[in-house]
Amino acid sequence: MTAKTEAVYSDQKKTILITGGAGFIGSHLCDRLIAENHRIICLDNLSLGIKDNIRHLFGHDSFTFIKTDLCAFGKLQNIFKKYTPDTVFHLAANSDIQKGALVRDVDLKNTFLSTYNVLEAMAQSTCKKIVFASTSAVYGELKSKLHENIGPLFPISFYGSAKLASEAYISAYCENLNLQAWIFRFPNVVGERCTHGAVYDFIGKLRKNPTELIVLGNGTQCKPYLYVKDLIDGILFGFTNSCGKINYFNLGVNSATTVDTIARIVIEEMGLAGVNIRHTGGDRGWVGDVPVFSYDLSKIHELGWHAGLDSDSSVRCAVRAELARKK
Amino acid sequence: MTAKTEAVYSDQKKTILITGGAGFIGSHLCDRLIAENHRIICLDNLSLGIKDNIRHLFGHDSFTFIKTDLCAFGKLQNIFKKYTPDTVFHLAANSDIQKGALVRDVDLKNTFLSTYNVLEAMAQSTCKKIVFASTSAVYGELKSKLHENIGPLFPISFYGSAKLASEAYISAYCENLNLQAWIFRFPNVVGERCTHGAVYDFIGKLRKNPTELIVLGNGTQCKPYLYVKDLIDGILFGFTNSCGKINYFNLGVNSATTVDTIARIVIEEMGLAGVNIRHTGGDRGWVGDVPVFSYDLSKIHELGWHAGLDSDSSVRCAVRAELARKK
Repeated sequence: MTAKTEAVYSDQKKTILITGGAGFIGSHLCDRLIAENHRIICLDNLSLGIKDNIRHLFGHDSFTFIKTDLCAFGKLQNIFKKYTPDTVFHLAANSDIQKGALVRDVDLKNTFLSTYNVLEAMAQSTCKKIVFASTSAVYGELKSKLHENIGPLFPISFYGSAKLASEAYISAYCENLNLQAWIFRFPNVVGERCTHGAVYDFIGKLRKNPTELIVLGNGTQCKPYLYVKDLIDGILFGFTNSCGKINYFNLGVNSATTVDTIARIVIEEMGLAGVNIRHTGGDRGWVGDVPVFSYDLSKIHELGWHAGLDSDSSVRCAVRAELARKK
Repeated sequence: MTAKTEAVYSDQKKTILITGGAGFIGSHLCDRLIAENHRIICLDNLSLGIKDNIRHLFGHDSFTFIKTDLCAFGKLQNIFKKYTPDTVFHLAANSDIQKGALVRDVDLKNTFLSTYNVLEAMAQSTCKKIVFASTSAVYGELKSKLHENIGPLFPISFYGSAKLASEAYISAYCENLNLQAWIFRFPNVVGERCTHGAVYDFIGKLRKNPTELIVLGNGTQCKPYLYVKDLIDGILFGFTNSCGKINYFNLGVNSATTVDTIARIVIEEMGLAGVNIRHTGGDRGWVGDVPVFSYDLSKIHELGWHAGLDSDSSVRCAVRAELARKK
């Protein structure tokens, strides 16, 4: 619907390894690249990803799913040897940012060391191209509009620090082992198969109790929300249209949506009325949550890509998808 | 001699834990803080540090040396429990940058995961202040003058990526576990007890063969060199005079010295003549070596600190120290 880049990576059939391929975003990438006639090797440890996200691809000749944890380095080496992928799209990570604050080594292992293992397996293989799912969280709580070249980079969540650590290692591997990298810093992403975040939480809460909605923070937290199919489109556009050693882009929309607006959209779409909204207070949802940010998107825009949906529309689209799924 | 900050951290006796305390820089920090009447717990695994650097402190009532590797987390926990330090000066790292390119997990373990363990041990203890030895290498190969807030940060050595990863984790620990951090990005540091770098290498080579000197690269590599006692002074000045959650500074000199100039100074100080200098060629000494950089030092200068020696003088001072030591 919103994808504007047609078959960006389909001049010839390639073998593509997708880590975290059974996750929310990874499974959409599988769909898109299968549709573009590539061979997909989908890895997932199914800790957050689920088979239901990719079950519809199981019968496809060009789709292979392997349940494995990236911490199992020997198995990863064997997968590179057996399938000799052209490119890795490395999306596997602990996407549960709040959990990372409580269980402090979960991001170390599942977000950073997993990346290290992927890079090391690539260094020992013929596969030299990595596309990496990074995040706005690497910027920490900088007050200015976030350009890719801004600093200092002091993340406030363990998720953000593990992603920045991953970027740092990708960079050294590019220099020392001749890898080539495409780093995309995602904003909040919403849409079909999403299992966390305000849209998902609010719908769950209101299904349990349609009269009251507890909102973390004061409700004014305001961030850009990108629709997942736009995100996939942006990744493939950036990957196809840049060829430096390290190519790095913010991906997002110029608009933004407050948490209170998300609550309003969810309530509207659920057809509810008279919901008592209670804020837990404070300027953010939890420690490590960046309450407000705004991307400078000039770099990806100048390359020629714009998102199809603005932030509010992305949220509404995601709400409708979630409501349709769980009917 | 060059220290201009008198007793910056000595309003009262504190227990200070120094990791990498038997190393080149760490041992100078031990000297300075013992001289300022603090109690020092000096940790080192003696992989690069040596007892000779701290032997003169062994009889001192306020100096305790513990041989331990920071990867031994249980032992580290016990040290924090037993000595309840006020502040950690975390200098332990793999300082052999070239080795990091060959043995790729050495910086992962000894530079990054060691930092992670220190942070986690601090989170579980009463010690909440960390002073961290970072590096110009976090900036990668940016062409402009390096201000602390410049980006993007794409290190080209595994040492640089492990230090940036460490900074990222320090930041998240500050936010989530109420640590307070002082991050100092060192340039090339020279002086007594240094065991690597051009000064040390050139003297060693010329002692073996006083007629020929092989210089890595084309000799025009040009970087700021800071005398180790100036560095210690800058660290303590910055630590004493800033009190944010994360305080971060470039430390250095505005001048710089080429590798060919270092060769000339070494030859002069050794009283040699007619040395045949041969360059291996290329713009840098090895993969991961940043050949040219220049710091923006306005932040530490505005705080009130300047180095005592310029870059060439620091090099000459270091050459004389090295020649005196090995007579």
